[in-house]
Amino acid sequence: MSNFGFLRLRVVNPYEVAFREARSAVGAAELLARAEEYKEVAAAVSDCSLVVGTTAVRSRDVQHPLHPLKQGARLIHRELRSNRVALLFGSERVGLSNQALSHCNWLIHIPTREDHPSMNLGQAVAVCLYELARDSRSFPEPAKAQLAAAGNVERVTSVLLEVLRTSGYLHPGSATLTDTKVRRLIRRLRLRAPDAEVWLGMLRQIIWKLHSEK
Amino acid sequence: MSNFGFLRLRVVNPYEVAFREARSAVGAAELLARAEEYKEVAAAVSDCSLVVGTTAVRSRDVQHPLHPLKQGARLIHRELRSNRVALLFGSERVGLSNQALSHCNWLIHIPTREDHPSMNLGQAVAVCLYELARDSRSFPEPAKAQLAAAGNVERVTSVLLEVLRTSGYLHPGSATLTDTKVRRLIRRLRLRAPDAEVWLGMLRQIIWKLHSEK
Repeated sequence: MSNFGFLRLRVVNPYEVAFREARSAVGAAELLARAEEYKEVAAAVSDCSLVVGTTAVRSRDVQHPLHPLKQGARLIHRELRSNRVALLFGSERVGLSNQALSHCNWLIHIPTREDHPSMNLGQAVAVCLYELARDSRSFPEPAKAQLAAAGNVERVTSVLLEVLRTSGYLHPGSATLTDTKVRRLIRRLRLRAPDAEVWLGMLRQIIWKLHSEK
Repeated sequence: MSNFGFLRLRVVNPYEVAFREARSAVGAAELLARAEEYKEVAAAVSDCSLVVGTTAVRSRDVQHPLHPLKQGARLIHRELRSNRVALLFGSERVGLSNQALSHCNWLIHIPTREDHPSMNLGQAVAVCLYELARDSRSFPEPAKAQLAAAGNVERVTSVLLEVLRTSGYLHPGSATLTDTKVRRLIRRLRLRAPDAEVWLGMLRQIIWKLHSEK
């Protein structure tokens, strides 16, 4: 990260022992000292308008758009002109959970030999950030619209879930799997910032109405 | 290496403990089992016609041409059309020694933040090989001439050194530093394969003459 000029690390439930040891990393001590810790992915990405996940798998019922790193980096650069982007990495052993994936707008993968797609986490991070820094002076055309930050999108999601449960579309104690599906559904909309506010207002009104009908 | 389809590892005086442990690397066990061990850089690169060193340093009296990775990768691809290329990495802590550098035709560096140029070795390798594999389907124009393999270039070097010592140009017990300078001198010639043979013949003839004069 530090090598390629990416200085904001956010960690979600880090394994404390390893994380404390890492703080001695040559040249990156300050970056690690300033790393922000979160309990949940949602909180860690809440101020980002684009959340990009990383995966080694090419086909596990991929419900997200999947871009090779090179193409993905171009899309990320475009977004970075006007918004914050989170690049989300999973654990070394199992990658991103389905729950974490549900917070992503789309995924990137590093093209590798078919026989050996799974990479070491540190190397995968280095390669992704190298690609992002590779042509950093040549940004493509500016982004068209200011997109809603993930925190606002998540707010829309929770209110929508409440609406769906209250309305009987979902069972009141509906499984995490369903929440996950809804979260993806919302992410695919790529809500613009002002539109998210409008949606939120609409959904809140619906909630109010549903409750007052009882 | 294995992720990006580079399957021939050669190691020079590896630290045995670490090297044996590495053999369990997920997905790369076969590659590691087939790694070839050498005592000297010269032997490890002897069948390669281009030897490219890697460095984090931008200015330590760089006596070699130094290319950013992106440009260097293009030159390597061109050479790979008709010849073998060695990509040489130094130890994690000190990088390539001057002795090892003297076997290189030129160097590459990975562009990084100025405040933090020194990379983790495994990450540097991953980034270099990613760049080399990145556009692997788009090779530029074919190389013009079959260049001499490093083994032949080294043979020319030793005979030249013998000539220089025997002729009194260098002191008989001349320092390694001088050998190193001569080695670089020869590398800069980029000898073609048939030309190296001609040079070797000429130098051997000179040696014979010098000895028979005594």
